[in-house]
Amino acid sequence: MSDRFTPTPADRFTFGLWTVGWRGNDPFGEPTRPALDPVESVERLAELGAHGVTFHDDDLIPFGSTESERAGHISRFRDALERTGLKVPMATTNLFTHPVFKDGGFTSNDREVRRFALRKVIRNIDLAVELGATTYVAWGGREGAESGAAKDVRVALDRMKEAFDLLGEYVTEQGYDLRFAIEPKPNEPRGDILLPTIGHALAFIERLERPELVGVNPETGHEQMAGLNFPHGIAQALWAGKLFHIDLNGQSGIKYDQDFRFGAGDLRQAFWLVDLLESSDYQGPLHFDFKPVRTDGIDGVWESAKNCMRNYLILKDRAAAFRADPAVQEALTASRLDELARPTAEDGLKALLADRTAYEDFDADTVATRSMAFEALDQLAMEHLLGVR
Amino acid sequence: MSDRFTPTPADRFTFGLWTVGWRGNDPFGEPTRPALDPVESVERLAELGAHGVTFHDDDLIPFGSTESERAGHISRFRDALERTGLKVPMATTNLFTHPVFKDGGFTSNDREVRRFALRKVIRNIDLAVELGATTYVAWGGREGAESGAAKDVRVALDRMKEAFDLLGEYVTEQGYDLRFAIEPKPNEPRGDILLPTIGHALAFIERLERPELVGVNPETGHEQMAGLNFPHGIAQALWAGKLFHIDLNGQSGIKYDQDFRFGAGDLRQAFWLVDLLESSDYQGPLHFDFKPVRTDGIDGVWESAKNCMRNYLILKDRAAAFRADPAVQEALTASRLDELARPTAEDGLKALLADRTAYEDFDADTVATRSMAFEALDQLAMEHLLGVR
Amino acid sequence: MSDRFTPTPADRFTFGLWTVGWRGNDPFGEPTRPALDPVESVERLAELGAHGVTFHDDDLIPFGSTESERAGHISRFRDALERTGLKVPMATTNLFTHPVFKDGGFTSNDREVRRFALRKVIRNIDLAVELGATTYVAWGGREGAESGAAKDVRVALDRMKEAFDLLGEYVTEQGYDLRFAIEPKPNEPRGDILLPTIGHALAFIERLERPELVGVNPETGHEQMAGLNFPHGIAQALWAGKLFHIDLNGQSGIKYDQDFRFGAGDLRQAFWLVDLLESSDYQGPLHFDFKPVRTDGIDGVWESAKNCMRNYLILKDRAAAFRADPAVQEALTASRLDELARPTAEDGLKALLADRTAYEDFDADTVATRSMAFEALDQLAMEHLLGVR
Amino acid sequence: MSDRFTPTPADRFTFGLWTVGWRGNDPFGEPTRPALDPVESVERLAELGAHGVTFHDDDLIPFGSTESERAGHISRFRDALERTGLKVPMATTNLFTHPVFKDGGFTSNDREVRRFALRKVIRNIDLAVELGATTYVAWGGREGAESGAAKDVRVALDRMKEAFDLLGEYVTEQGYDLRFAIEPKPNEPRGDILLPTIGHALAFIERLERPELVGVNPETGHEQMAGLNFPHGIAQALWAGKLFHIDLNGQSGIKYDQDFRFGAGDLRQAFWLVDLLESSDYQGPLHFDFKPVRTDGIDGVWESAKNCMRNYLILKDRAAAFRADPAVQEALTASRLDELARPTAEDGLKALLADRTAYEDFDADTVATRSMAFEALDQLAMEHLLGVR
Repeated sequence: MSDRFTPTPADRFTFGLWTVGWRGNDPFGEPTRPALDPVESVERLAELGAHGVTFHDDDLIPFGSTESERAGHISRFRDALERTGLKVPMATTNLFTHPVFKDGGFTSNDREVRRFALRKVIRNIDLAVELGATTYVAWGGREGAESGAAKDVRVALDRMKEAFDLLGEYVTEQGYDLRFAIEPKPNEPRGDILLPTIGHALAFIERLERPELVGVNPETGHEQMAGLNFPHGIAQALWAGKLFHIDLNGQSGIKYDQDFRFGAGDLRQAFWLVDLLESSDYQGPLHFDFKPVRTDGIDGVWESAKNCMRNYLILKDRAAAFRADPAVQEALTASRLDELARPTAEDGLKALLADRTAYEDFDADTVATRSMAFEALDQLAMEHLLGVR
Repeated sequence: MSDRFTPTPADRFTFGLWTVGWRGNDPFGEPTRPALDPVESVERLAELGAHGVTFHDDDLIPFGSTESERAGHISRFRDALERTGLKVPMATTNLFTHPVFKDGGFTSNDREVRRFALRKVIRNIDLAVELGATTYVAWGGREGAESGAAKDVRVALDRMKEAFDLLGEYVTEQGYDLRFAIEPKPNEPRGDILLPTIGHALAFIERLERPELVGVNPETGHEQMAGLNFPHGIAQALWAGKLFHIDLNGQSGIKYDQDFRFGAGDLRQAFWLVDLLESSDYQGPLHFDFKPVRTDGIDGVWESAKNCMRNYLILKDRAAAFRADPAVQEALTASRLDELARPTAEDGLKALLADRTAYEDFDADTVATRSMAFEALDQLAMEHLLGVR
Repeated sequence: MSDRFTPTPADRFTFGLWTVGWRGNDPFGEPTRPALDPVESVERLAELGAHGVTFHDDDLIPFGSTESERAGHISRFRDALERTGLKVPMATTNLFTHPVFKDGGFTSNDREVRRFALRKVIRNIDLAVELGATTYVAWGGREGAESGAAKDVRVALDRMKEAFDLLGEYVTEQGYDLRFAIEPKPNEPRGDILLPTIGHALAFIERLERPELVGVNPETGHEQMAGLNFPHGIAQALWAGKLFHIDLNGQSGIKYDQDFRFGAGDLRQAFWLVDLLESSDYQGPLHFDFKPVRTDGIDGVWESAKNCMRNYLILKDRAAAFRADPAVQEALTASRLDELARPTAEDGLKALLADRTAYEDFDADTVATRSMAFEALDQLAMEHLLGVR
Repeated sequence: MSDRFTPTPADRFTFGLWTVGWRGNDPFGEPTRPALDPVESVERLAELGAHGVTFHDDDLIPFGSTESERAGHISRFRDALERTGLKVPMATTNLFTHPVFKDGGFTSNDREVRRFALRKVIRNIDLAVELGATTYVAWGGREGAESGAAKDVRVALDRMKEAFDLLGEYVTEQGYDLRFAIEPKPNEPRGDILLPTIGHALAFIERLERPELVGVNPETGHEQMAGLNFPHGIAQALWAGKLFHIDLNGQSGIKYDQDFRFGAGDLRQAFWLVDLLESSDYQGPLHFDFKPVRTDGIDGVWESAKNCMRNYLILKDRAAAFRADPAVQEALTASRLDELARPTAEDGLKALLADRTAYEDFDADTVATRSMAFEALDQLAMEHLLGVR
């Protein structure tokens, strides 16, 4: 059914080749679906209304391909892109599947692995730029440890910084228009992963040689695996000017990484996320990093891809209605959101110190009786979400 | 029993007045213990070998005291400090107990509350400095929300920044030798708290006017409430030069804030934490922010206070033995920790790019067979912890 | 606004006196709202369309009241019930607020406390029956431990069984038409609570002298605090014939007990819960055990009480539409729910063993290619929930 | 080093073939170790002092083997058992790896899959009995769902019951001396798994035709993935007479299933678990169901297998010392564990009702002041664990 929730490329929806291409292998089971040709993925995603496609090097060019095989894969992919008009706004590197990365890429204790990892990234950066990407994502899923002495975290952060500094030097020297986006995750596949949350990644970036080149690529489920509020994290990333990219999916609480389609999992957080993104200056891709459930055949792959976009558009519609509702405007004022936006001491420190009403004459007990009126406000949001207003 | 695990002030152990003074009220129950006179707490902590004591303004001077009552409380406290030699290395503000702070202090939607909160902090800063404190902790436990529209997080972060900028201005103008330490917590008492982890706090600090004045005061249980590895978080704080203070206690996983005595909860993380602190340049207080279990009488209060320190000293002893063991040194080398400490590309980017062994001639399959030998290393740590080596 | 989502007593909605009466005290803060007179609560709940009200003994009759005070409280309450028509389908005992219960009621290590607890329960059972209650809830929130040796769990379960056996004997001898419902919770206020989940409670009941008298009273948030799927737990309780009562509220994942209004927290589980309850033979009360957010005044109390009911009715409407949709019927068949309802071996074991198609000639690889078509089915549910179909 | 912590077969330690044989594949990575020949595993485990070995059908006989291949695999395995003296006390079925089980075995919506699953189990039961097993474990890891309508849980429990009833009928008719042990798990690889905890499994068993034939096989990490206290769960299983088998390993909190070696993860719970098992009448195998970390080579496999046993023996030693310590005996009495063991009303209900000291004359405020003295008791346990007493 084509309706107002049917996407077009203007909606900026993108998908990883590895998402629709996931074959369903998990820690306890073998693949349930055949491999998908990247070209088919490009074609189908274009038909569904996507704006772009993204890839790990090894998604497109199997690890260990010869130069001529590589060229062939790239050529077919590029043809498909041209034919369909799909863009490649982002690319990334697989530093986790091959067993050589078992202790990490940038922070493996094995220095030779670290050097290989950097070269593998650089090689794919060249391709990414060729294909038009302006964001390069770095998910350090194997940068971590299962036991205390196995990793000296301070030293590992030195190595992580060294890696990003080298990559920043490389793209600067090449004159590439490419920024990096670090994707945090708290655990899985490692017991504890370095830079486990949006906050840790943002803090790390400030210690780099070229912090302006590096931002974050937060993923819904990754923050929720730490029990954190995803919209809150995105808000802090936006506040810091560091939301360079975003991975949208669904997760049902603190457990293994579920990668459900967008909208599944915590639906109310999904609503607030869309509300936030649409009210922000974020103009990057809306990238779905999900896995079609393993129980389904290829039908479920395209069904879920379609519904990631559809759910975003439904929530966007609902968030817009929420913000436009005069009753909501009133409720926001009753909850004093306008006061939050006013500086606490626009008159400066000295005036604050001199203001007896702020302390000496402040009647805490009386002020404490003011209701914040949050229940009414939240119910308005609930009813817009459910479509009963 | 006085033995090598009996503390002395040189061990730098400190306690909050509110810890031993906790009366056992919880969400479902009334206090089980009588109020403790702060002077008694000072005396008993001194007897137990503590170095210092810390306080919230309201711990020492009940909210709403008159000026002369206030002076009396301070005078008695100061006398006890002088008599016992106990120091006050840190103080903090209670911006959470009184109902006026129900929506926060620095980020309450109610501007009058924010102004009062700032003045309340400033008033106690003056006292803190008088009493010799050099660190001022800020736990923003009520800075958060239970529902999506109730708090515009970006705007709330503006207010949070405004608050720390004003405080930084104040201490600078006063010429105080005082630094701030932000204490992160993911949730409870709010559904989601702003600056939920060490990472988020570190990142926030970088956007302040005087970032050099502000660091973090991480608490064991708070990070573990998000399922995060506490020693990893402390390592990142140290790496960033921002570990200004630390709150030690115990927590059994992701649940309500338990505040067990140090050592209870995740014992292995406690071991790695002590190992890390003792191998770092952290020279600040080792501050216990715990709650003696509510089931116990006053006997349990002093028993648990004593054991916080005792457990730290036992773990310090074990960590030292671990590091001194030649078998451990060998195991660290087998696990290539020395290689991790070596830069990945000390010869620079150009050399890395030119090194065919790093990519073109790199044999991933062969390198992948190298064992990291982490099991043997971790068992050595286990056996040192258990005292069987 | 009065509409199809406005409740009537026929909807069987009930509230605890302690829910609307919660004053907002939490582990870090004092009450933010004044005490509510139970009579006012009865009147307001009746106006809102509730069917009934429930209570802990101490909600109605403050702990330590004299006999004549007690009689007065009961008399005023009874008058209000008669005036409003509100029922009392359930009552329960407060075995957690007074410090004497710090180590539990039925399983306190202190035998005198256990005897007092039993007598306190029995006393309130008499009142409950007088007021027409047919269900008596037992939440053992303090039955647990923070440390390993503090409670011998097997022995404690003996004491728990003894308590329920004595209570069963009592109501049988009195000829009361009253059944018990155990309310599980994993932790808080104790580190670990006995009978932590629906499953543990169901299993425990089977070892009682009169298992037929005892069922469960699961609470949304309590199961979700263990990361468990609440509708799944309710389904198992129904399957066992043991869903005697239910506590509806909202919780945002694994953290402290939040007790949000129904609908807040995990909205999709709330939808599936209503779908399940409405398709089951459960005819008991729909009891809201929630806490109006502490930031709000008394306005938020009645707003949230109203919305608990309203959200249930909205979800009931949506679940009915989902089940009635022919596309859903088709999708259920595509997902083989009809096959799940068919016995696996209605022809018996012998026939199964003889059926070569079941094993020797079974082509696993081919059967494995059948799609379960769950993505399409789940999206239909999503769209009914969001009201876009 | 051979010392008092070196195991012998009398210690009843057993290992799954799949544990030491795990090759290190995870959701994001390919195997890091070569396949192990089951015969080699048997030989090495025997050398290390194990008592027995266990297996899934497919561990020993690859899925799809011909009859003669099957016979060959069994014959080689049997020879190795005879040569080494290793026992096979337990076996189980793989109903999760092959894609045909993507929606479960006993509760797959696909009836043909359910029939195949039952036949696959029965086939391996015959072999298990031949090899001397007396326990047959059933882990229903794929029995669950990711979305609400995909599984009607009540109907699925009917199917689950049907399966166990048929299996009970089969072993009864065959006259096998074999009992079943259900292994609960909350999630992973399914979003929510049926019978998610020990409690749910215990409750389910009571509804079977032959409940006496079925008990539980709890796994450390599985309960801890729900934030539950593992020793508490084991205590309830023992109390119910249903601890038929146990899976020992390590887990660091609520996250993906980590399967660390025993002792890693929550060390204090491991101590209390050993204390409990050694003080109980459990005489079954002590079965390690762990995964040697993926970063290690084959060296780590045998190192970790050895250390599972070693850590158990160390903890057993420490638990025995704890229980033998006169100071502990005193502390237990101070904490009134002896009173917990005394019936609450050994004199019966009537006497309790007549006892005015139990209620009318009970002085709650005074009794409330009694300290439970748990801090001192827990510190004694800590110091025995750490070997400092």
